[in-house]
Amino acid sequence: MNFEYNDNTTALMDRLNTFMDKEVYPIEQEYIKSVEQAENRWQTPAIMESLKAKAKEAGLWNLFLPNEYLPLGAGLSNLEYAPLCEIMGRVPFSAEIFNCSAPDTGNMEVLAKYGSETQRKTWLEPLLAGDIRSAFAMTEPEVASSDATNIETAIRREGDEYVINGRKWYTSGAMNTNCKVMIVMGKTDFDAPRHQQQSQILVPMDTPGVTVVRPMAAMGYFDEPIGHAEVLFDNVRVPADHLIHGEGRGFEVAQGRLGPGRIHHCMRLIGCAQRALDMACSRVDSRIAFGRPLAKQQSVRESIASMYCEIEQARLLTLKAADKMDRYGNKVARDLIAAIKIVAPAMACRVIDASIQMHGAAGTSQDLPLAAMYAYARTIRLADGPDQVHMMQLGKNLIAETAASRRNEVPSD
Amino acid sequence: MNFEYNDNTTALMDRLNTFMDKEVYPIEQEYIKSVEQAENRWQTPAIMESLKAKAKEAGLWNLFLPNEYLPLGAGLSNLEYAPLCEIMGRVPFSAEIFNCSAPDTGNMEVLAKYGSETQRKTWLEPLLAGDIRSAFAMTEPEVASSDATNIETAIRREGDEYVINGRKWYTSGAMNTNCKVMIVMGKTDFDAPRHQQQSQILVPMDTPGVTVVRPMAAMGYFDEPIGHAEVLFDNVRVPADHLIHGEGRGFEVAQGRLGPGRIHHCMRLIGCAQRALDMACSRVDSRIAFGRPLAKQQSVRESIASMYCEIEQARLLTLKAADKMDRYGNKVARDLIAAIKIVAPAMACRVIDASIQMHGAAGTSQDLPLAAMYAYARTIRLADGPDQVHMMQLGKNLIAETAASRRNEVPSD
Amino acid sequence: MNFEYNDNTTALMDRLNTFMDKEVYPIEQEYIKSVEQAENRWQTPAIMESLKAKAKEAGLWNLFLPNEYLPLGAGLSNLEYAPLCEIMGRVPFSAEIFNCSAPDTGNMEVLAKYGSETQRKTWLEPLLAGDIRSAFAMTEPEVASSDATNIETAIRREGDEYVINGRKWYTSGAMNTNCKVMIVMGKTDFDAPRHQQQSQILVPMDTPGVTVVRPMAAMGYFDEPIGHAEVLFDNVRVPADHLIHGEGRGFEVAQGRLGPGRIHHCMRLIGCAQRALDMACSRVDSRIAFGRPLAKQQSVRESIASMYCEIEQARLLTLKAADKMDRYGNKVARDLIAAIKIVAPAMACRVIDASIQMHGAAGTSQDLPLAAMYAYARTIRLADGPDQVHMMQLGKNLIAETAASRRNEVPSD
Amino acid sequence: MNFEYNDNTTALMDRLNTFMDKEVYPIEQEYIKSVEQAENRWQTPAIMESLKAKAKEAGLWNLFLPNEYLPLGAGLSNLEYAPLCEIMGRVPFSAEIFNCSAPDTGNMEVLAKYGSETQRKTWLEPLLAGDIRSAFAMTEPEVASSDATNIETAIRREGDEYVINGRKWYTSGAMNTNCKVMIVMGKTDFDAPRHQQQSQILVPMDTPGVTVVRPMAAMGYFDEPIGHAEVLFDNVRVPADHLIHGEGRGFEVAQGRLGPGRIHHCMRLIGCAQRALDMACSRVDSRIAFGRPLAKQQSVRESIASMYCEIEQARLLTLKAADKMDRYGNKVARDLIAAIKIVAPAMACRVIDASIQMHGAAGTSQDLPLAAMYAYARTIRLADGPDQVHMMQLGKNLIAETAASRRNEVPSD
Repeated sequence: MNFEYNDNTTALMDRLNTFMDKEVYPIEQEYIKSVEQAENRWQTPAIMESLKAKAKEAGLWNLFLPNEYLPLGAGLSNLEYAPLCEIMGRVPFSAEIFNCSAPDTGNMEVLAKYGSETQRKTWLEPLLAGDIRSAFAMTEPEVASSDATNIETAIRREGDEYVINGRKWYTSGAMNTNCKVMIVMGKTDFDAPRHQQQSQILVPMDTPGVTVVRPMAAMGYFDEPIGHAEVLFDNVRVPADHLIHGEGRGFEVAQGRLGPGRIHHCMRLIGCAQRALDMACSRVDSRIAFGRPLAKQQSVRESIASMYCEIEQARLLTLKAADKMDRYGNKVARDLIAAIKIVAPAMACRVIDASIQMHGAAGTSQDLPLAAMYAYARTIRLADGPDQVHMMQLGKNLIAETAASRRNEVPSD
Repeated sequence: MNFEYNDNTTALMDRLNTFMDKEVYPIEQEYIKSVEQAENRWQTPAIMESLKAKAKEAGLWNLFLPNEYLPLGAGLSNLEYAPLCEIMGRVPFSAEIFNCSAPDTGNMEVLAKYGSETQRKTWLEPLLAGDIRSAFAMTEPEVASSDATNIETAIRREGDEYVINGRKWYTSGAMNTNCKVMIVMGKTDFDAPRHQQQSQILVPMDTPGVTVVRPMAAMGYFDEPIGHAEVLFDNVRVPADHLIHGEGRGFEVAQGRLGPGRIHHCMRLIGCAQRALDMACSRVDSRIAFGRPLAKQQSVRESIASMYCEIEQARLLTLKAADKMDRYGNKVARDLIAAIKIVAPAMACRVIDASIQMHGAAGTSQDLPLAAMYAYARTIRLADGPDQVHMMQLGKNLIAETAASRRNEVPSD
Repeated sequence: MNFEYNDNTTALMDRLNTFMDKEVYPIEQEYIKSVEQAENRWQTPAIMESLKAKAKEAGLWNLFLPNEYLPLGAGLSNLEYAPLCEIMGRVPFSAEIFNCSAPDTGNMEVLAKYGSETQRKTWLEPLLAGDIRSAFAMTEPEVASSDATNIETAIRREGDEYVINGRKWYTSGAMNTNCKVMIVMGKTDFDAPRHQQQSQILVPMDTPGVTVVRPMAAMGYFDEPIGHAEVLFDNVRVPADHLIHGEGRGFEVAQGRLGPGRIHHCMRLIGCAQRALDMACSRVDSRIAFGRPLAKQQSVRESIASMYCEIEQARLLTLKAADKMDRYGNKVARDLIAAIKIVAPAMACRVIDASIQMHGAAGTSQDLPLAAMYAYARTIRLADGPDQVHMMQLGKNLIAETAASRRNEVPSD
Repeated sequence: MNFEYNDNTTALMDRLNTFMDKEVYPIEQEYIKSVEQAENRWQTPAIMESLKAKAKEAGLWNLFLPNEYLPLGAGLSNLEYAPLCEIMGRVPFSAEIFNCSAPDTGNMEVLAKYGSETQRKTWLEPLLAGDIRSAFAMTEPEVASSDATNIETAIRREGDEYVINGRKWYTSGAMNTNCKVMIVMGKTDFDAPRHQQQSQILVPMDTPGVTVVRPMAAMGYFDEPIGHAEVLFDNVRVPADHLIHGEGRGFEVAQGRLGPGRIHHCMRLIGCAQRALDMACSRVDSRIAFGRPLAKQQSVRESIASMYCEIEQARLLTLKAADKMDRYGNKVARDLIAAIKIVAPAMACRVIDASIQMHGAAGTSQDLPLAAMYAYARTIRLADGPDQVHMMQLGKNLIAETAASRRNEVPSD
């Protein structure tokens, strides 16, 4: 047992921090404003391309892609990539600079792992190069999509094609003008056993029958220029070879992306929370109320202390989940993967909220990243299943595991 | 002691509910969309004028103005008006229909109580008629404004005029095209005793030197078409008779508006929370996950039960504060007025958040009022002083009161 | 609506407070020590009898018994009695002084309402006179007794007798040397419809076959000299006329005692909490740490403020429940009665815990009543059903009520 | 970074678990009863000696003593000892079996580190052999002892002796009949700089002038046979060579014991919490309410999941603190040492409380260890300084550290 990052990780963290200090923080506000004032708010500002070029040059590119896909990615383990994810999380739009932003990362992993050669040639390559972006269409407005067996979008085989009908929303990425393809989750067989009905399929954005209906707000934010779209599929026809990994394997494909995706999300949120704490520490040191700096108020100190304790604990839990996943795979690590999904978003909500409170009105304004970070963290409490679903699963597992051992008196690891 | 609304109140509640059912809920989504799609998002949609006319006709007009200003208002006590405020709170924009929306209500009360005859003629009359709107400029970006002695805007006498210099933000109402006047809090004498430095003054929006710099976001929401403005005062000159109630009386004037304003805000938030609970009850009754309606999940029932308990308690506390204010005035009721400011916004945040959670992605979307309600409730935790300021004051009072009695063993009322 | 106690209540509160100040607080520590050092810790100290005599003389006797049983009791409504209950709650053993202590109060109400003439003559009269004490045997170790249909104690008719077999625990009152009779809940018919299997029956403590096995601890406290007993019923035979209100009516009898009992318990807990707050206010005013009184620490003030807000809200909720019960009966008031059971014990736990924290080690010691109060409040979260059972019921009711109205847009009362 | 225990640790954990399974759990209830029924409740039951002999034989003895004191102890690092501490924490009295119980561990460390040869010969040797026990007298009833500069006990030099006067309470260990010596914290110089006034001195229990006044309760528990004593020092005279490490070095000596002590306390509490969770998992699996096992209730699963998340996070935080202390010493690890003192006791309170709730009345009874564990955890929130003191320190540090770096945009480790 050892709680220090290894040398490789530390070196990468240093390089990434240096990049952030030099290239990202200084243009953060400018970037946000250029999005707001753009003629088309779904078009990524030009400055992004130059940042991406610099990141590539600095060797900070495709860091997310795990070792087994070397030389496509950076060959990092989940445990090594996690702290980099935290650093990017401090500036929500920055992940794209390093080609590490959702949902592209998950889509790339899926294609790297399950994609046919044509699929990889057509979509994975330009994605890895950062030339295009992609979307993932899963959630549906009409059903509780956290129980993925509820999903109703139909993917029906007709000759050499699949015909897709359904309505999705919160399809992240689909508003962006550079988004060229979606991975769509739907049912190829409504009568198969519950977990073999689903398939995933590639749908180019310009396929006839695809309508991007409108952008969806997430707690007041539209998250331009990436956005979350409502998408209508009306007799959308794609060649049969667009199916990923075979009919009925949608669940299997979904599981594959889940574990690493959770680590990424949680570490980004930890980055948000840590920045919120750093900002709070600075703020209370300079702000005077009722005759003395907020930093001297006992309740402010208590709040700062709690924020630190919450962040550090969530970070360790997430790193342990990453370590376990690296060693034993997603299945063995499932309890910890559920645990971080329960812990990190709720923690981030509390910590960011506390920082907003210390910043007063400014904390709720567009001048600071806190309100947007809160909305992001709050939304993640629902994305990929609400907290309750993961608690249900984790609670059930724990009870079963205890029953299985029932030589009750040994401590768990 | 009696926990039932009196007949007058019940009758008014019925009439107001009937109006809401018939005129407001049916056009709620339409109203919101017409704001979003307006050419000028700071212009109140035309439909508002017809709703106001209907409300006047229905005798549901200026309900907020307390008995002492009869026949200007409806002559209701705070306790009688409170439940009406709750009903309006269910649809955030609806208060304007009944000419009961902030900050106009507070401004009207101030003018009714402290305004000169000219001031009342010029500004109170058109406000009471619903012909114009107004703003209240208090918070400043550079100082912790919850400690109002920090305020730095200068109001300097020069001959027959006052010259105003300073920067305000979160000046609610000032973005609206129909806003014609602001009440501005500033300092007429930086050397006077701490609570006699401040004055309040009327500033017509079109006075040279007034610049509405930009709209401020509150947790991602710009609250169109009313909004919160950053306003620059650069050598703004107004005639000396625009001062309200005399130099150095800014604190006194501020106190007068505080008590009722708190009741209104809290009851509106209770309305938000109650609606969030009502929506949750409906949602869980129809939504199926993992094989059965959410309504059958024990954790959902527990959450619903907690929401009810929290709302009902906050409602009773607010009604008691209103009752005490009606009987004995703001000063005697100060502990309860502090208490509701601490309790109601935080309660509303928790309850609305729980309802969002039960609604899944839809809860965060623009299709339901929940996310906007959350942002509103969250902002109110800071408006008018963050929770901590009121807890400080209340805690201090309670310790002092205990010390004063120190025949320690009598129960408080 | 009116938040002030009526004159009758205020006058009684004054008299009761005067009595407490003069007779109870001064001997509080002495009473507790005399119990600890008694030869038989289950014998009520002699001083209790003289206090009871004084209370009778002062007209502060049997205050709990509602108006319909005049002239047996004081003829107070639940709303009028509630604040008296709060005052007694400040000193846990004091309720007995006024013949207002559980489980006697519930037993007396049951006998007044459902008892036969013989039953009332034999047991109600000496109980009302304060000559004997009684116990209520409900909870069983082997089953989840919060679901009373689980209860397994058998009450079998044999000729002119009932034969009782079973094991109870947490039978409050049964350890006391002056306890002469138990009311026992059991099943007379295991095959009847679920809510008609149970009956309640009077069992004199000295009946052969009754064994008081041992005292049960409640969070470390044995609550001498009253106590909670494990009681074994081994072929216990009582005459058939000892059955209360008829076979199969056990649930009905239980419901009757529930409503008022909840009000009493909750108000006593509010008394505990209020005293804990009063003590905290005094403590922080005098205790110095890190150079200044705790009272000047912002976090202490925030904690004090929260305690006040929590107590006042729970008090109002409980008083509203009492008012509703007085006006419309237990059934109509069921949501509120569930709500106070959820709210008050948990609130008392939090408030007392916060006071303990401010008292440091002393707060956990036998020198202050706080630790015992905490244990009491914590236990009440389980007595009469754990929080979760009441939340389940309340949540279910609320969802059903919303579904029933479904003209969704009217505020609840 | 690596989240798995090393082989040495795993092997020791296995041996310790085996010992617990074979020797401790089977006699747990018997041990507790033999204490309750002992003629002298302050005398350790005879069975303890035979358990200690077995532990010595099994090589499970003095595990706590860090490497630098080899061959006196087991030579484990804090990180290696921590999980053993957790295992012992599952059965509160078990630490003594392995000669690892407070306050002896701290006293032995102090003597090993700062004791003179005579002091070590006289007291350390029999303590290491488990032949005697000891106490630590720090807290005083009259002052806020968490601010140790408040301590008022006087240690005055008179010729070859020191004369001690003062009153201590919650002197853990001093009630036990086998306790032979106390380490007493007091002031040798009231006029020295604030942190050089204090000294620590050895006082044999049988020194004239030492009066063990009474046992103190901790949340209703007297923790027999060890206990917490009120101790009066009335002109207690000991030879000058009983002073530890020199006059004015009391703070330095205290600091030395602090770090490891915190790890031990926190890991024991984590052991309590883990056992409470294990018990809850078993309980809900078998208990039926309202027609199905508690394990199938969604709210039960959520509660179980939360318990796991809380425990695992606190465990990782504590292990990281141990690792940092091992690598860089107490000073560098101070933020983490403060953090675990804030996190672990409060976590244990919540987790144990949740388990009590799932156990119903039984959870509060003497038949299960939960209520005593709760009292222990609650008391530790105050022992060694209330949470607030550690939050104050940690908050202050964090703000200062941020100010020191103020190249604000680098993530903390």
